[in-house]
Amino acid sequence: MNAPDDRTADLGFARVDVERAARTGDPEVIFGAGKTPEQIASILRTLHERHPERAVLATRLSPEAMTAAAAVGAEVHPVARAATLGPLPTPRGVVGIVSAGTSDAPVAAEAALSVAVHGAAPLEIRDVGVAGLHRLLAVRDTLDEVDVLIVVAGMEGALPSVVGGLVGTPLIAVPTSVGYGASFGGLAALLGMLNSCAPGITVVNIDNGYGAGVAAARICRVGQRGASSLAPPLPSQPRGNTP
Amino acid sequence: MNAPDDRTADLGFARVDVERAARTGDPEVIFGAGKTPEQIASILRTLHERHPERAVLATRLSPEAMTAAAAVGAEVHPVARAATLGPLPTPRGVVGIVSAGTSDAPVAAEAALSVAVHGAAPLEIRDVGVAGLHRLLAVRDTLDEVDVLIVVAGMEGALPSVVGGLVGTPLIAVPTSVGYGASFGGLAALLGMLNSCAPGITVVNIDNGYGAGVAAARICRVGQRGASSLAPPLPSQPRGNTP
Amino acid sequence: MNAPDDRTADLGFARVDVERAARTGDPEVIFGAGKTPEQIASILRTLHERHPERAVLATRLSPEAMTAAAAVGAEVHPVARAATLGPLPTPRGVVGIVSAGTSDAPVAAEAALSVAVHGAAPLEIRDVGVAGLHRLLAVRDTLDEVDVLIVVAGMEGALPSVVGGLVGTPLIAVPTSVGYGASFGGLAALLGMLNSCAPGITVVNIDNGYGAGVAAARICRVGQRGASSLAPPLPSQPRGNTP
Amino acid sequence: MNAPDDRTADLGFARVDVERAARTGDPEVIFGAGKTPEQIASILRTLHERHPERAVLATRLSPEAMTAAAAVGAEVHPVARAATLGPLPTPRGVVGIVSAGTSDAPVAAEAALSVAVHGAAPLEIRDVGVAGLHRLLAVRDTLDEVDVLIVVAGMEGALPSVVGGLVGTPLIAVPTSVGYGASFGGLAALLGMLNSCAPGITVVNIDNGYGAGVAAARICRVGQRGASSLAPPLPSQPRGNTP
Amino acid sequence: MNAPDDRTADLGFARVDVERAARTGDPEVIFGAGKTPEQIASILRTLHERHPERAVLATRLSPEAMTAAAAVGAEVHPVARAATLGPLPTPRGVVGIVSAGTSDAPVAAEAALSVAVHGAAPLEIRDVGVAGLHRLLAVRDTLDEVDVLIVVAGMEGALPSVVGGLVGTPLIAVPTSVGYGASFGGLAALLGMLNSCAPGITVVNIDNGYGAGVAAARICRVGQRGASSLAPPLPSQPRGNTP
Amino acid sequence: MNAPDDRTADLGFARVDVERAARTGDPEVIFGAGKTPEQIASILRTLHERHPERAVLATRLSPEAMTAAAAVGAEVHPVARAATLGPLPTPRGVVGIVSAGTSDAPVAAEAALSVAVHGAAPLEIRDVGVAGLHRLLAVRDTLDEVDVLIVVAGMEGALPSVVGGLVGTPLIAVPTSVGYGASFGGLAALLGMLNSCAPGITVVNIDNGYGAGVAAARICRVGQRGASSLAPPLPSQPRGNTP
Amino acid sequence: MNAPDDRTADLGFARVDVERAARTGDPEVIFGAGKTPEQIASILRTLHERHPERAVLATRLSPEAMTAAAAVGAEVHPVARAATLGPLPTPRGVVGIVSAGTSDAPVAAEAALSVAVHGAAPLEIRDVGVAGLHRLLAVRDTLDEVDVLIVVAGMEGALPSVVGGLVGTPLIAVPTSVGYGASFGGLAALLGMLNSCAPGITVVNIDNGYGAGVAAARICRVGQRGASSLAPPLPSQPRGNTP
Amino acid sequence: MNAPDDRTADLGFARVDVERAARTGDPEVIFGAGKTPEQIASILRTLHERHPERAVLATRLSPEAMTAAAAVGAEVHPVARAATLGPLPTPRGVVGIVSAGTSDAPVAAEAALSVAVHGAAPLEIRDVGVAGLHRLLAVRDTLDEVDVLIVVAGMEGALPSVVGGLVGTPLIAVPTSVGYGASFGGLAALLGMLNSCAPGITVVNIDNGYGAGVAAARICRVGQRGASSLAPPLPSQPRGNTP
Repeated sequence: MNAPDDRTADLGFARVDVERAARTGDPEVIFGAGKTPEQIASILRTLHERHPERAVLATRLSPEAMTAAAAVGAEVHPVARAATLGPLPTPRGVVGIVSAGTSDAPVAAEAALSVAVHGAAPLEIRDVGVAGLHRLLAVRDTLDEVDVLIVVAGMEGALPSVVGGLVGTPLIAVPTSVGYGASFGGLAALLGMLNSCAPGITVVNIDNGYGAGVAAARICRVGQRGASSLAPPLPSQPRGNTP
Repeated sequence: MNAPDDRTADLGFARVDVERAARTGDPEVIFGAGKTPEQIASILRTLHERHPERAVLATRLSPEAMTAAAAVGAEVHPVARAATLGPLPTPRGVVGIVSAGTSDAPVAAEAALSVAVHGAAPLEIRDVGVAGLHRLLAVRDTLDEVDVLIVVAGMEGALPSVVGGLVGTPLIAVPTSVGYGASFGGLAALLGMLNSCAPGITVVNIDNGYGAGVAAARICRVGQRGASSLAPPLPSQPRGNTP
Repeated sequence: MNAPDDRTADLGFARVDVERAARTGDPEVIFGAGKTPEQIASILRTLHERHPERAVLATRLSPEAMTAAAAVGAEVHPVARAATLGPLPTPRGVVGIVSAGTSDAPVAAEAALSVAVHGAAPLEIRDVGVAGLHRLLAVRDTLDEVDVLIVVAGMEGALPSVVGGLVGTPLIAVPTSVGYGASFGGLAALLGMLNSCAPGITVVNIDNGYGAGVAAARICRVGQRGASSLAPPLPSQPRGNTP
Repeated sequence: MNAPDDRTADLGFARVDVERAARTGDPEVIFGAGKTPEQIASILRTLHERHPERAVLATRLSPEAMTAAAAVGAEVHPVARAATLGPLPTPRGVVGIVSAGTSDAPVAAEAALSVAVHGAAPLEIRDVGVAGLHRLLAVRDTLDEVDVLIVVAGMEGALPSVVGGLVGTPLIAVPTSVGYGASFGGLAALLGMLNSCAPGITVVNIDNGYGAGVAAARICRVGQRGASSLAPPLPSQPRGNTP
Repeated sequence: MNAPDDRTADLGFARVDVERAARTGDPEVIFGAGKTPEQIASILRTLHERHPERAVLATRLSPEAMTAAAAVGAEVHPVARAATLGPLPTPRGVVGIVSAGTSDAPVAAEAALSVAVHGAAPLEIRDVGVAGLHRLLAVRDTLDEVDVLIVVAGMEGALPSVVGGLVGTPLIAVPTSVGYGASFGGLAALLGMLNSCAPGITVVNIDNGYGAGVAAARICRVGQRGASSLAPPLPSQPRGNTP
Repeated sequence: MNAPDDRTADLGFARVDVERAARTGDPEVIFGAGKTPEQIASILRTLHERHPERAVLATRLSPEAMTAAAAVGAEVHPVARAATLGPLPTPRGVVGIVSAGTSDAPVAAEAALSVAVHGAAPLEIRDVGVAGLHRLLAVRDTLDEVDVLIVVAGMEGALPSVVGGLVGTPLIAVPTSVGYGASFGGLAALLGMLNSCAPGITVVNIDNGYGAGVAAARICRVGQRGASSLAPPLPSQPRGNTP
Repeated sequence: MNAPDDRTADLGFARVDVERAARTGDPEVIFGAGKTPEQIASILRTLHERHPERAVLATRLSPEAMTAAAAVGAEVHPVARAATLGPLPTPRGVVGIVSAGTSDAPVAAEAALSVAVHGAAPLEIRDVGVAGLHRLLAVRDTLDEVDVLIVVAGMEGALPSVVGGLVGTPLIAVPTSVGYGASFGGLAALLGMLNSCAPGITVVNIDNGYGAGVAAARICRVGQRGASSLAPPLPSQPRGNTP
Repeated sequence: MNAPDDRTADLGFARVDVERAARTGDPEVIFGAGKTPEQIASILRTLHERHPERAVLATRLSPEAMTAAAAVGAEVHPVARAATLGPLPTPRGVVGIVSAGTSDAPVAAEAALSVAVHGAAPLEIRDVGVAGLHRLLAVRDTLDEVDVLIVVAGMEGALPSVVGGLVGTPLIAVPTSVGYGASFGGLAALLGMLNSCAPGITVVNIDNGYGAGVAAARICRVGQRGASSLAPPLPSQPRGNTP
């Protein structure tokens, strides 16, 4: 038995939520891992037909899946291992995506593409690592000017702490599985970012460039919808001079 | 040897960075754990004298430290186990702080106070848990109207996933150490939030209400400084129809 | 030396317990992982010959093993990666099997088939996830009417908490290994379910749809054998008004 | 801001869900850890006044909390570290609670009391451990006659596997934190139970006697409400002889 | 630079300790994992030529390595994935090797062969698991009569606890990597055995049948060399009636 | 309900197995952790009255429990934090207990006393650590002459590997919780011992001197009961020259 | 039995290695954790009497132990929680000890004192953290001029990576247990340092300032004993242009 | 956007830091894992052209990458799985590289080659393990004469403790992933080395022969640049006789 729901499209092997955008303002996204190239192409086409005016994103694609996506008219992004079908939205706000090395490039590219698909402009800042501070300091003004920062790093994951000490921009840290031995598949970088001594850093799952891109694009929308209709309340907890 | 630096105040037992605000836009904050009540009171007063026009925040205070803070004129916030000295800034933007139970109250209160000190208005939404969906659905409009959401939860940490499925607001999840046995001091909630099936959720360290508050207040500033001076660039990765 | 035992059949490479049913009321089951297709087919046939009147179940089958099972007359269940040989029992009671996505389908299908083989009727409820509450609320009456619920989820494993907050039906949670990064092969979902804030949820091993199905079918038998012959005793611990 | 809800009672420091019973058929329960004796006594009284015809349960009580509970008329259960206020329901079904040693007694007693409060009759079977099989075999008939079994064990947690090999009764395993060194606070027992070679065992969190009791009592209700109104459907997955 | 040592044979790619037997009374053993078939065959031959009067053992062999070992005259033991070259010693003492299922057979067979090569007689007792106690009780006399027991088990690893509760024979527990999900590659079985409630159980590494065999054969030698020449001393710690 | 059993003595708060000796040849032992001084004294006296001709051992005693034990006539062993009541058996065989430092002394003393109570003669060899090999080499002859070795070590737990490389005596390794930081409460030592490159080492739980003592004393009994009545069988696995 | 050894002094409760200096060139050190103030004072005095010409170091001292040490003439170092007795050696080489905050001060001070006791000159560089790069860049020349660097950091442990990217000085990283939640007692910092992207960093145990100091002082001795008597050999592995 | 930097060479797929040597005194190194043979060959050639007077090192090479490296004129080192292009520097100082078995050979060889490339002379000391102390004692003089020791070990990782107890030479421990079961991919060896009871040992990541080689060569440079220009300061912490 399937849950009755007229907001979904039934593809036989899956039912696809075609009204998520109305609910959250986000486009449809297909997580490609574990799906066949045919399934991915089919879902891309179905979602595109329902809403041809906005982009559909497919991530975690194998080379075969990228070929299948291209065959239904999708634009393929090889570094990001992803594909898009339909026009990207007009970007509002700029998201800087900072990464250190070529090993982290796929995660950074997935983040950049996800930013674009969700309605903001990505600006990739590459080859800046903690072991070469001069490169980082050379782009400090840019770090200050973007609306949001995504910082991607593997191994010890120290880059977000250093960037977060330089600027007050909202910063989303993405640990990657790049490393070996005691990196334990990205755990070292994840723990490092969660324990950052630079305040205000938030973290997503290991290799989750997509999630970071969604969060960053949503942040860019904040303030663009006009003043909040909620009257700014006072802090709600009890106050007083004695504990 | 101390690093030479005219941007710090030397208190004997510590040198305090008094110009962090100029660098990141944030107020000064004292992490009270591991400091004596006398040290905390002394740092509070020193920082306040340098910049009496803005608030200083002290967190993780023992009852004795709260008394010492009150003695130097600070306002004490018992539930948040924190104190502030100096006027709070005029709030820009509203941050909803969602929590389920009384056990999570201290972390939620620390988040709310940190939001206020960093320049946004906190709105606490309490007693909404995944095991009682009706309460959550009753406040759905509010969840949609705030600029940012902080969702605090211990045990299995499922609340951010449920809230994140309802709205597209930027959402920061705070795992707490509430639980026992296989919660492993908050690890279960932390892992749950990092693996959320609701996209766009970002996570901070266990019990880190302060960090979530800083991040949320920074997000409220986005878009309020006018259009970014950066021209929205195109996505920077190579494109094409073939992988 | 083999343990002497006339309740087993010796197949050379294995001795099979053919009287388990008499002892526990359950059918014979072959755990296929690590066995060759020939071994699986041979055990299926041997067990079927001893008790042609009831079904034998083989789980965790490779495509080759499914082919070999079909060759000895077994019915193959591709999604569940399983096969049955012999007639299924008349079902007593209904077990709802709730799952969110296509990735969890193999585990849900294994649970459903195990329920049927062990004597209850499975009712699969698919495509209901915590990030889309409306689908879940749409099937709430069904969740209430079944005798037992099996809830299958990967990633953060929050679905059992949400379902368990809606109904008082016995609920068995099955974490799956679906996820990446900090899901640690299903550990995040497992910990989430063990720490659920919804009371009365019990949990099985990661990906163990079979074990959940056995437990659920056994629960359906409770009360169907008539009133317990045991006189309901009073609670056995000491009582009193002072600790 | 509190979530508006007329189904709760506001006690100042907490809002209490007084209609959970209508929703799930369970009584109200207070998790005492982290609450003051005064808070516990106050919640007990409030809940009792709303529904004097049914019992309220408070668990994880300190000696002081037990004294405070007794002062408002509650019955105190010292071994279970719990208290009840109001009449217990008439038991339906019998739950056997099996444990090995005196160290596991508090968890077993909490399970037994939770069973009674949730409407079934507990039958404690003590001093049966895997290292003394003769005691276990001596009570085998009883293990077979109860409706549900709760098996409590610390250290290596092997007892559920042995009991589960003897009978086909629904069995809920409760790992306890009894042990030292590589027991890692009950982790060894928890993993042992999750990996049991006896099929159909389900598991709750470490030391969670309450959760096991709730689940067991709910199972006792199955089949007592008459035949399910749902027509027993056929297994829902595709079938066929070829994979 | 190689450590100068006339007790070793230099094979170019390795230097082999040919006098270990004089030092510990044990034969030479080749750990085959990570060595090429040619290397294994070469070491087997070299060691055999030095001491043709006693057996050499090679473990963890691939099928190719077994073929290469056979080509130099070694006897191959396929289930144990091992080979021996040279005559086995006359056995002194009997070691019972208890295991539950076919999945544990390779580890049990490696243990049995290691026992034989190190000078004791192995007696395999198969198909006895905790979920079928009757088989175990049927061989209880044998468990009592052997000099040492090796108990091999995967999954929850409960078998050593049950066997250890029946007899006072020295017992070596071998956890295996058989299992899935929360067995974490044998960790669950290892922790279970280390925390056994049956006293006097000792444990070896996961899948280490060889190590268990060495230890068991050494135990069989105890007491066979005549009374210890050491005068039995009194317990050496301070005594007295007051702490 | 208690399991009916005439082999136990009921003390109200516990039922004590008074016939374990008949079953396993071991004396009665009381694990003192978690028991009150009064309970410990009461069990000591009860067990002693049943079998005044043999010793009862109580371990893990607090200072108060040692005083209570002395008051009922027990001999107290302060370093081992233990007490005995009744005459020790005549020792058969000698067990060497090797340890490095004063921090490991309590575990070594518990092991030595357990050896004595279970019927062998302990010989403590102290102050030999891997970082001072000359001390170890000075006692090499003694290491060779004892029947069994217990090697106690904390921190990295390397001592058993070094001792095990010198002699072929059966060797039981006991990791201790001595250490800090990344010793993780003895986990580092435990893993080190399980992975020892010296073959034939077996391991017990962290700080489990008692378990090591039981195992060692049992080994001393091997061979002393005369030749095994079991005919030495041939190795039971299939043999042949081809894999 | 104690290992016979004329290189040790027997104090009753411990035997102290008084010739370690001859063997390794290091002074005697007392690890104070777990020793009574009286024991520490006694060992200090004994070691000092044997070799009054060189310093003895005692670490991990409680306030009471510091008082006892002062009473036998030792110099107390409160921040380092340590004491020394006897003259410090003339320093050879300079060791820079870099730390970020007041929380890491005890570990940094222990490292500095250990450096001095082992024969090098410590130079503490405080208040430089990754979140305030300007302080670190201000001392860059100093970082370059010292012979060895010890970098102490808790939380995410990123400081060694940043320092290691600036200079080629030998660098020893010391993770501290400063942090909370997912720092897991210093594990996050430890993993971060082990996975540093800056090459040539080595790491010691959590909070092990002493070990870092020993290693740093030993490095300062390198090259000061004149050219190695060993002729520089060529790299010893096979070379060639084809793999 | 790439960080503007004239110290790097842009290869299209990567920008290479060609001035690292000026900054840290180290040569350029290519971490080959995750790069294609073509990329590795291209980077080798580019770096060599910029600075033909010094060597470039490429590590973690597949056989294909070694072939590609040879094709651009690099010298291939098969055991180390590495290649060098350009002349090695004149060695200053000698680094002893100690390892136990053939399984650790690749890591030891990578360390030796890294030592040579970074300007010191490697001296490999093979086949010395803790389970054969006589080999180790035979090379003790050599251990004393080298300037630095690198000790490579897998399994329990005990070798550094034993070597560190013999000599006072700076010692870098390299855990390897050699082992199985509870070695957890080198974690057991890593923890063992971090917890070594021999003082002054520092540790690098699992299998990180390269990092150990860099650190060792840097240590050899210490003292060779003449006396430090820094005046040896006094220890910087407060002193006094009372705590």
